Amino acid sequence: MQNFTFHNPTRIIFGRGGIARLGPEAAGAGKKALLVYGGGSVKKNGVYEAISASLAENGITVTEHPGVKPNPVLGHVRAGVEKAKTNKCEMILAAGGGSVIDEAKAIAAGAAYDGDVWDFFTGKAGIKEALPVFTVLTLPATGSEMNSGCVITNESLKQKFSAGSPRLFPRVSILDPGTTMTLPEKQTVYGAVDALSHLTEGYFSASDKDAVVTDEVVQALARSIIASTGRILKDPGDYNARASMMWSATLSLNGLQSLGYGGISFAGHAIEHSLSALYDIAHGAGLAIILPALFKHQLEKDGSGRLEKFGGAVFGAGSAGKTIEAFERWFKKIGAPIRLQEAGIPAADIPKIAENAMELITLWGINYDRKTVEEILTKAA
Amino acid sequence: MQNFTFHNPTRIIFGRGGIARLGPEAAGAGKKALLVYGGGSVKKNGVYEAISASLAENGITVTEHPGVKPNPVLGHVRAGVEKAKTNKCEMILAAGGGSVIDEAKAIAAGAAYDGDVWDFFTGKAGIKEALPVFTVLTLPATGSEMNSGCVITNESLKQKFSAGSPRLFPRVSILDPGTTMTLPEKQTVYGAVDALSHLTEGYFSASDKDAVVTDEVVQALARSIIASTGRILKDPGDYNARASMMWSATLSLNGLQSLGYGGISFAGHAIEHSLSALYDIAHGAGLAIILPALFKHQLEKDGSGRLEKFGGAVFGAGSAGKTIEAFERWFKKIGAPIRLQEAGIPAADIPKIAENAMELITLWGINYDRKTVEEILTKAA
Repeated sequence: MQNFTFHNPTRIIFGRGGIARLGPEAAGAGKKALLVYGGGSVKKNGVYEAISASLAENGITVTEHPGVKPNPVLGHVRAGVEKAKTNKCEMILAAGGGSVIDEAKAIAAGAAYDGDVWDFFTGKAGIKEALPVFTVLTLPATGSEMNSGCVITNESLKQKFSAGSPRLFPRVSILDPGTTMTLPEKQTVYGAVDALSHLTEGYFSASDKDAVVTDEVVQALARSIIASTGRILKDPGDYNARASMMWSATLSLNGLQSLGYGGISFAGHAIEHSLSALYDIAHGAGLAIILPALFKHQLEKDGSGRLEKFGGAVFGAGSAGKTIEAFERWFKKIGAPIRLQEAGIPAADIPKIAENAMELITLWGINYDRKTVEEILTKAA
Repeated sequence: MQNFTFHNPTRIIFGRGGIARLGPEAAGAGKKALLVYGGGSVKKNGVYEAISASLAENGITVTEHPGVKPNPVLGHVRAGVEKAKTNKCEMILAAGGGSVIDEAKAIAAGAAYDGDVWDFFTGKAGIKEALPVFTVLTLPATGSEMNSGCVITNESLKQKFSAGSPRLFPRVSILDPGTTMTLPEKQTVYGAVDALSHLTEGYFSASDKDAVVTDEVVQALARSIIASTGRILKDPGDYNARASMMWSATLSLNGLQSLGYGGISFAGHAIEHSLSALYDIAHGAGLAIILPALFKHQLEKDGSGRLEKFGGAVFGAGSAGKTIEAFERWFKKIGAPIRLQEAGIPAADIPKIAENAMELITLWGINYDRKTVEEILTKAA
């Protein structure tokens, strides 16, 4: 078990009616907020109204920044930074899923910086200051509501890059599972795949494989995600399943899921980011395609017994091969694609995808060459 | 799954060599510290030396407050408060196990209060301010290093009461599993029992029994504690097992272990506190005696399936009765007593113990009358 530092200062307000507490919590940060949201689903499910009421009651005025895309783009982030600066916003509020929260974090950092916000994603600059971020989560998936990272796509360079800083931990995140009851099934499913991927990528790439407590926590959260997804698909109105899914997804990338593992890598994410950058497919769909192929690749090179351990604990699978099969079977069962072709991506594009992925693979310090990435993608064809 | 708020701001520095980081972390809080420790084991295992070196390097001077007892007593807390006030200490440092940390927290609150520190334990006053607390943990057990509570015994009134406040979260806790390698076997064992009790008391008393994610987390931590204890008893020098035990114990009472359960009660702790207050036995020993009896009692009145679920997931037990047997078998296997007589407590004392326990049962709002407590104790005879 390797050394680690763990510090997660985000305050979580979880449960029914939590949005009413946004105003009182945010009031401590000032009177002027930038409200970031997406395509307007928050206006249909009552979230926008509840937020507006709570802010108004607490004397907080809002500049709106709607229109965040599922893979949030730099141009829109820059526009948000500009609005935040022009309107002298003292805080950034996010209402939506991981994309909205990621964009809100990027704006929060950009608004406290004189240069271009993309500098933080290329490594040209570090995030030293950021406006406080408050979130109202409506889609369990990315864990962004309780971590310090964000992912933004540079639409002109076709680069989907990440940035992070302790300054980006949301000050408060409000998680009301009630807001997820009307999610389209695909979003529920892709959110579950994303959360599971955060657990498994760390578990399988851990450089230290004797961290019993973290292995147990990862396996526990994976079981919770799988059980909760099953219940939700059967009954979308199952509040307790929605609640377990929401909290499981948060815990799956708030830091706890890799403590003591030492170095871990997110090779699956690095490769998937190219799929969603190049083809604009859902992140969760891309992950369901990449992960079994990646784990097959890791299995061929690695006799560590990790796949057997995970598969036994989570799927009741008896071998590494059976574990891969169980992943694929579960992804198919919940309606996620597991091959490139199912997402309309021709095998002929593999060299192009691999070339694109190498930028992030290199930036994240993952020890794969282009040939290896092509091999993994070929297994997903 | 019930609503909850979760906010745990303690920074954890985990692993070998962590003590060297105490000075730099503490320097932000001032230049004068009260250093609280126990019977001097920290002077034998190098912890005291490492702390002193790190503090000196960072210009922090220390007033010493040694001699904390395993069940820390009010008189010693009051003496510590006096020292902290007299010497104008700006922070409290704890070096030891849960007792030392609990006393350090009580002193931190008392030093920022004009009245008597016991007021916080009787509910006469709330903790509004406290000096910052930094801890170096040397015994995994209570979770005090990452929570906001503390337990102190009023030696003249024979009352073992608790107090808590968000102000009492340690600012930084340093967990170096290397410091636990030379622990006497009994302390390892009783620590494991204590940590397991924090998990199980919540799990079995949960008023909401459909929080899948928290059930999974609790079961995972219980498995980790049991597996780690087994490895440590076989090889006390097994660093990774020591590390998993240490982090498991912290996670077992840092809040995560009961999220969404709604009301939970610590009836086992309430009753056990009377055993350690009246007979000065180890807290973990008292818990091993009380818990199976308590769970038997809960099993007789409750058809919820909780024992079956926990037993199946943790012990591979097939029924509620088999789960109780598995608890008792595990406690015996690791060398903990499971009956009052084994700790030298005669069955004739049960009425006296029950009478003493009723104070805490009442203070904590647990819905047991004296007859019920006597019934539970009788099952432990």
